[in-house]
Amino acid sequence: MKKLIVFSLFVFASIQAFAQIERVEPPHWWADMKYHEIELMFYGENLGDYKVDVSDGEITSVASADSPNYLFVTWNTKGISTKTVEFDFKKKRKTLFTHQFELKKRTDNSAERQGFTSEDAIYLITPDRFANANPDNDIVEEMREKKLDRADDYARHGGDIQGIIQHLDYVEDMGFTALWPSPLLENDMDEASYHGYAITDFYRVDPRFGTLEEYKELVEKANEKEVKIIMDMVANHCGSGHWWMEDLPFSNWLNYQELYEGGKEAPNSSHKRTVNQDPYASDYDTDMMKKGWFVQTMPDLNQKNKFMARYLIQNSLWWVEELGLQGIRQDTYPYPDKQFLSDWAGTIMEEYPNFNIVGEEWSYNPLIVGYWQDGQQNFDGYQSNLKSVMDFPMQGAIINGLKEDEESWGNGLTKIYEALANDFYYPNPLDVMVFADNHDKSRIFTQLDGDIELNKMAMALLLSLPRTPQIYYGTEILMEDFDNPGDHGLIRTDFPGGWEGDEVNVFTETGLSPEQLDFKHYLRDLLKFRKSSKALQIGKAKHFEPFDGMYFLFRIHEEEVVLTVINKNEVAQQVDLKRFAELKLNGKKFIDLGSGHSFIWKEDLELNHGVHLFTSKK
Amino acid sequence: MKKLIVFSLFVFASIQAFAQIERVEPPHWWADMKYHEIELMFYGENLGDYKVDVSDGEITSVASADSPNYLFVTWNTKGISTKTVEFDFKKKRKTLFTHQFELKKRTDNSAERQGFTSEDAIYLITPDRFANANPDNDIVEEMREKKLDRADDYARHGGDIQGIIQHLDYVEDMGFTALWPSPLLENDMDEASYHGYAITDFYRVDPRFGTLEEYKELVEKANEKEVKIIMDMVANHCGSGHWWMEDLPFSNWLNYQELYEGGKEAPNSSHKRTVNQDPYASDYDTDMMKKGWFVQTMPDLNQKNKFMARYLIQNSLWWVEELGLQGIRQDTYPYPDKQFLSDWAGTIMEEYPNFNIVGEEWSYNPLIVGYWQDGQQNFDGYQSNLKSVMDFPMQGAIINGLKEDEESWGNGLTKIYEALANDFYYPNPLDVMVFADNHDKSRIFTQLDGDIELNKMAMALLLSLPRTPQIYYGTEILMEDFDNPGDHGLIRTDFPGGWEGDEVNVFTETGLSPEQLDFKHYLRDLLKFRKSSKALQIGKAKHFEPFDGMYFLFRIHEEEVVLTVINKNEVAQQVDLKRFAELKLNGKKFIDLGSGHSFIWKEDLELNHGVHLFTSKK
Repeated sequence: MKKLIVFSLFVFASIQAFAQIERVEPPHWWADMKYHEIELMFYGENLGDYKVDVSDGEITSVASADSPNYLFVTWNTKGISTKTVEFDFKKKRKTLFTHQFELKKRTDNSAERQGFTSEDAIYLITPDRFANANPDNDIVEEMREKKLDRADDYARHGGDIQGIIQHLDYVEDMGFTALWPSPLLENDMDEASYHGYAITDFYRVDPRFGTLEEYKELVEKANEKEVKIIMDMVANHCGSGHWWMEDLPFSNWLNYQELYEGGKEAPNSSHKRTVNQDPYASDYDTDMMKKGWFVQTMPDLNQKNKFMARYLIQNSLWWVEELGLQGIRQDTYPYPDKQFLSDWAGTIMEEYPNFNIVGEEWSYNPLIVGYWQDGQQNFDGYQSNLKSVMDFPMQGAIINGLKEDEESWGNGLTKIYEALANDFYYPNPLDVMVFADNHDKSRIFTQLDGDIELNKMAMALLLSLPRTPQIYYGTEILMEDFDNPGDHGLIRTDFPGGWEGDEVNVFTETGLSPEQLDFKHYLRDLLKFRKSSKALQIGKAKHFEPFDGMYFLFRIHEEEVVLTVINKNEVAQQVDLKRFAELKLNGKKFIDLGSGHSFIWKEDLELNHGVHLFTSKK
Repeated sequence: MKKLIVFSLFVFASIQAFAQIERVEPPHWWADMKYHEIELMFYGENLGDYKVDVSDGEITSVASADSPNYLFVTWNTKGISTKTVEFDFKKKRKTLFTHQFELKKRTDNSAERQGFTSEDAIYLITPDRFANANPDNDIVEEMREKKLDRADDYARHGGDIQGIIQHLDYVEDMGFTALWPSPLLENDMDEASYHGYAITDFYRVDPRFGTLEEYKELVEKANEKEVKIIMDMVANHCGSGHWWMEDLPFSNWLNYQELYEGGKEAPNSSHKRTVNQDPYASDYDTDMMKKGWFVQTMPDLNQKNKFMARYLIQNSLWWVEELGLQGIRQDTYPYPDKQFLSDWAGTIMEEYPNFNIVGEEWSYNPLIVGYWQDGQQNFDGYQSNLKSVMDFPMQGAIINGLKEDEESWGNGLTKIYEALANDFYYPNPLDVMVFADNHDKSRIFTQLDGDIELNKMAMALLLSLPRTPQIYYGTEILMEDFDNPGDHGLIRTDFPGGWEGDEVNVFTETGLSPEQLDFKHYLRDLLKFRKSSKALQIGKAKHFEPFDGMYFLFRIHEEEVVLTVINKNEVAQQVDLKRFAELKLNGKKFIDLGSGHSFIWKEDLELNHGVHLFTSKK
């Protein structure tokens, strides 16, 4: 009889559980994490009323929210081995239903995973526009946006995770060692959902990109080829189609939530990001920048709500552990709460000390960018814990420095020379991520006015500077946005060959123009050389003030010396090498990577127009 | 008989002394200096052979030089009271002659002298072009340049120290509290000696400017009016007419001395000043920048020679003590040896802890400028000991920010707002010296295209920013260099009224145009207000992102609030004051400094085109 009652209760509880718990986030965790006290967000009708017991470990706090349908349970998992744990949901001491929660086994050496470094070269892709391997997921009925139209730059084009997996050979063959796909999580938005930055479920892969299993497969297969995977994350905002927008847990889950809930528009962010550093910033400006919404379709998350902060931190840890990532790129870095950012990056780096995170501070002022790099001695004591920052200042200097015809005081190549001199301010320049363009900027080929030689100079610089280089997909075939420079949809043009029936196919090198083929091979050769060159990856840098329209940058590691020279002169130059005497290169054999010819360093060197790489490596 | 012999020897020694010692530098010192171990440079024919004894204190070292005619005697004056000391010059234990050296009494509280601060407003003048009170010293026969020609911008015009003294009333009346005359020391050069930066005797006032006594009188009379005096010094180079160029003490007294002595030209400095910070700078570039000569008429002093370093440090201390200065402006700051600069500034600041020194780093990059300010946490541990740096970055931002018509992202007033936001990098922004122009830059009136309203905005900004402001003579009457913008001679035009018979006279306000008179009074009113306003001098700053073509900058000290507003709109604007709620100004009474009208801060404010200063001060 007793058995029967227990059984009945169990059935009842199970039924209730199905009815009650709609979501548990994170859906599982791992045993033996440093981050062992986790906050579980249970969501379901009137869940806020329940008491909770757990079969293992200790519940350190249970908090209901402003909405009756949330319960935040903080649970200490310390010492619990891999197993499935039961959470009993109770009223008046009776368990009304039970939720089973899995503590998984971590991958071996998970904590020691190696993040991306200056030894890597990163390939940035926009997954919707890279390759469509699975047409079955092009349109997914449950999603709001059902448009698939390759003729519309702002519609979905069908690229997916399988498309990336199928072309990992290409990524490897090009010489890239890391891949940064823009966000792959659910963006259940009415339109323009292809870019991925309006996340509507922080624990779900967008079904139009694929499944969680496919994402795992991507990381696994990439790692097999020694290609690291960097996940693009967004902590500042969600998409307005996020499931919780219908039932926000707290009255301060979002910034300007009261306006949103009152049916009004929240103010847009001022985007005046200097408020993060400005000692004279008004509270008004700070609020407008930090709390204003990035755009109206991206509600601004309030990381000052401690439940939100933990939610986001755990979400990032969950993806690193679940997928086995080698890096994170954090979007719109200066927009979320500063203390949160420090805690977020700090927690991740504590869990994975060799990991890497790069933050996007879109500023051409190195003072601002350098503020965010870990180790900076900031006036306000701010410790960012952020290892890598994006080098917008150098990006700007490369474009202007290469384009400016006049080589004079402060112009032309001197812009690049002086931008690099600013490195004294960065705690670790090698960890600064340099790029020529990305998914938000006009294509480098367009920025450099379609000049192939200047584009080669840009590529050689990216891969020679003491930096972590990033290259945007399509750069290798001179993809451009001349028709409307900077237009987001146009920047993110389909990668030829990624779709069945494409007449041009980069992977098979079908239909490419001679210029495209030449440039692709040029970049591939550079990347492959860099892959083999410790000097370019981690060597010391030494450079010389531009003279006679030429810039000399040396990278040196032990016996290996790599010299990158840009010669802007239309005619060949005879260069007296006495200037470089301090490097003691006399008698050293160098190979010209372009021609393959070798020469012995002695009195002078003839340099044709263009960019040259010389290596002492055998 | 014995007496007679002694007497004869004494006469002999005295004659020898006159014959032998041509120079002793410093010519005297003071008792009770912290810097008590001084190095005396004795110069005279074959002085290097002598032994030296002193009647008081201890000689800690005697060094001969490469030239036979120098003797460097290091002497510890500790504990010696005010007196005249005898240096006996000996050979074979016999005193052959004696030099009397005076240890003077220091002025009371000399060590505690107060340097210039952000509470001051500095008037920069070019003495040859300010006022000629003594026509007798216009041409001095012993000097190489004997040309006096007011029609020639590069010849001497006759301005002198007496001219400055005579017009201290004017300086005071305008509201300036500090005066920085460009160098007044001997420039015995063939031509263009008027500017003073080619010093040919570090211990002598140029006789065309006046005498040491007159320089002392200038400081004394200025101080009586509570006007501080800042001496313009040059440690990087001397003038090629310097007396020691005929007989250099050491073979490394100058940089590239071997070329000079071989009858060749030393290379000019590359002026690529980033080598001071650049972690990748080559030795070649560093040498070219640091050791290259500023120009061929200015031999580059080698401060790595420790005798030279001490010579320059003592020379600066000597002038501070001798004249009773309140500040130093050091020319071409990034050019001399870095360690020397740190020692130089450090020694002076140790002797006079409340003193101030401003260094000229002509860079528009705040990263570079801020590197030099005392207290900066530099990557290389460099401690500059330099309290004040010149704000070229803000100068550039003011010009561009005011001139740019388009008020958009990163343009117009935002340039000023963002330049000020960079203050987080400066250890002490109040000590940064801001200016609109100076003796090396095109006149502000010219830079701002002759627009008087923009010039008023520039003046209001200079005097409202959390800075130490400097204004160049003639700015008050809209002096310009439109004919050849930036031409040094033209920038340094004669100040009308400084010469007898001038038709226009600024001092008496004779012959000025209505615009000049208006501008002069505008600036005077601003300066006088600043003189009374602790908020503008030392108040906290708070500013607001420019909106609708307007920029609001508040300075706040205790109960006093000063608001500077720039309104670029041609038509009046009605400004909703809700934005400024955090300042809690509602009900506070303000006076419009322009109109004299008062108003109570409440809901909104009407602002005409132009710049406005509102003060809560009664």
